[in-house]
Amino acid sequence: MDCKVICTEIAVRLDTGPDIRDITGDFLSALTVSGITDGVLTANVIGSTGSLTTIEYEPGVVQDLKDAIERLAPRDAQYRHELAWHDGNGHSHVQAALLGPSIAIQIRGGRLCLGTWQQVVAINHDNKARTRRIAITITGTPGR
Amino acid sequence: MDCKVICTEIAVRLDTGPDIRDITGDFLSALTVSGITDGVLTANVIGSTGSLTTIEYEPGVVQDLKDAIERLAPRDAQYRHELAWHDGNGHSHVQAALLGPSIAIQIRGGRLCLGTWQQVVAINHDNKARTRRIAITITGTPGR
Amino acid sequence: MDCKVICTEIAVRLDTGPDIRDITGDFLSALTVSGITDGVLTANVIGSTGSLTTIEYEPGVVQDLKDAIERLAPRDAQYRHELAWHDGNGHSHVQAALLGPSIAIQIRGGRLCLGTWQQVVAINHDNKARTRRIAITITGTPGR
Repeated sequence: MDCKVICTEIAVRLDTGPDIRDITGDFLSALTVSGITDGVLTANVIGSTGSLTTIEYEPGVVQDLKDAIERLAPRDAQYRHELAWHDGNGHSHVQAALLGPSIAIQIRGGRLCLGTWQQVVAINHDNKARTRRIAITITGTPGR
Repeated sequence: MDCKVICTEIAVRLDTGPDIRDITGDFLSALTVSGITDGVLTANVIGSTGSLTTIEYEPGVVQDLKDAIERLAPRDAQYRHELAWHDGNGHSHVQAALLGPSIAIQIRGGRLCLGTWQQVVAINHDNKARTRRIAITITGTPGR
Repeated sequence: MDCKVICTEIAVRLDTGPDIRDITGDFLSALTVSGITDGVLTANVIGSTGSLTTIEYEPGVVQDLKDAIERLAPRDAQYRHELAWHDGNGHSHVQAALLGPSIAIQIRGGRLCLGTWQQVVAINHDNKARTRRIAITITGTPGR
């Protein structure tokens, strides 16, 4: 069947990084509005200190992932970025680059192909609270 | 040329994590059935303790990647997830979130755009064997 | 609106890894040629020792990310890959697998949905200079 493409965007308020928020509901709302039932949802964070991935969104895993992100690039380590910019977020840039800005979640029957205990999350790595914009493209076929 | 979208799914048996399996053949089979020759294959693991990436699939690299994954989030470290769930897979959740659930491989002339020594792999991070479902969407144009 | 799919490829010269190069201009050129103004650009590195992500492309962050990549899989550690191949790039394979070969950047009004200080980068992890081929698919609707 020929496919349609629907473009949209969400904005998510996140605290000082690493902060992790469940955006599955936002993706699902965008999907419902699109009318597309089968295909793929691609998305990327706009900004170089944010990332997207999936987790089981419960407080324990959220904290464990924050700890792991902190180990990847500790905030109190030395960063060359600081030498020029002095904005204290060298770790934020490294963390976000390693996790990656984009994701692709498949769509079937108007639902996101996720496990029962799997949620899409936006992560703010910046050293201040940020409203993160996430661009979303839904590509696929409309339901009958 | 107008594009088509084809939706499918594979299931892959994986051992206790980290276990890594070459699924290039499964992707290629899906591609052949789809009839699409040029475009993109997007896929994501269904479930929060699996991930997708590419490697040179030879026993040395497979073991090296397992070792690196283990270093990212060692199984014998302490995880908050355990406090609530006691299922022993806190490390699995963290590892999978860092590697990410999805991938996008381009398609040209009915083939996946991969290097000669580059295979698509599914990784099970869970602390038990799992049959991992992977949702696949093939978007593009059919051959003539 | 019905969508089109445009397939293209770029080649980028990179030094011995980890080397990081801004390819935003290459992506934008491909986008302009495609005539597509709204949709998504997906891409993957061809070869198992390259990766794609986004960063603020300034010398400090570039060096910080190189340092972090080196910590993920140091070049002077021991790798099983060496036992069979003796090509000295065990670390390259592990680094590239962890960062991932693919990316999806959304397109709006003929522009890539990136922050002002966010660039798409190709990374060569191999232990020699490489011309990295990157396959690009642009899926979406043409401007009016």
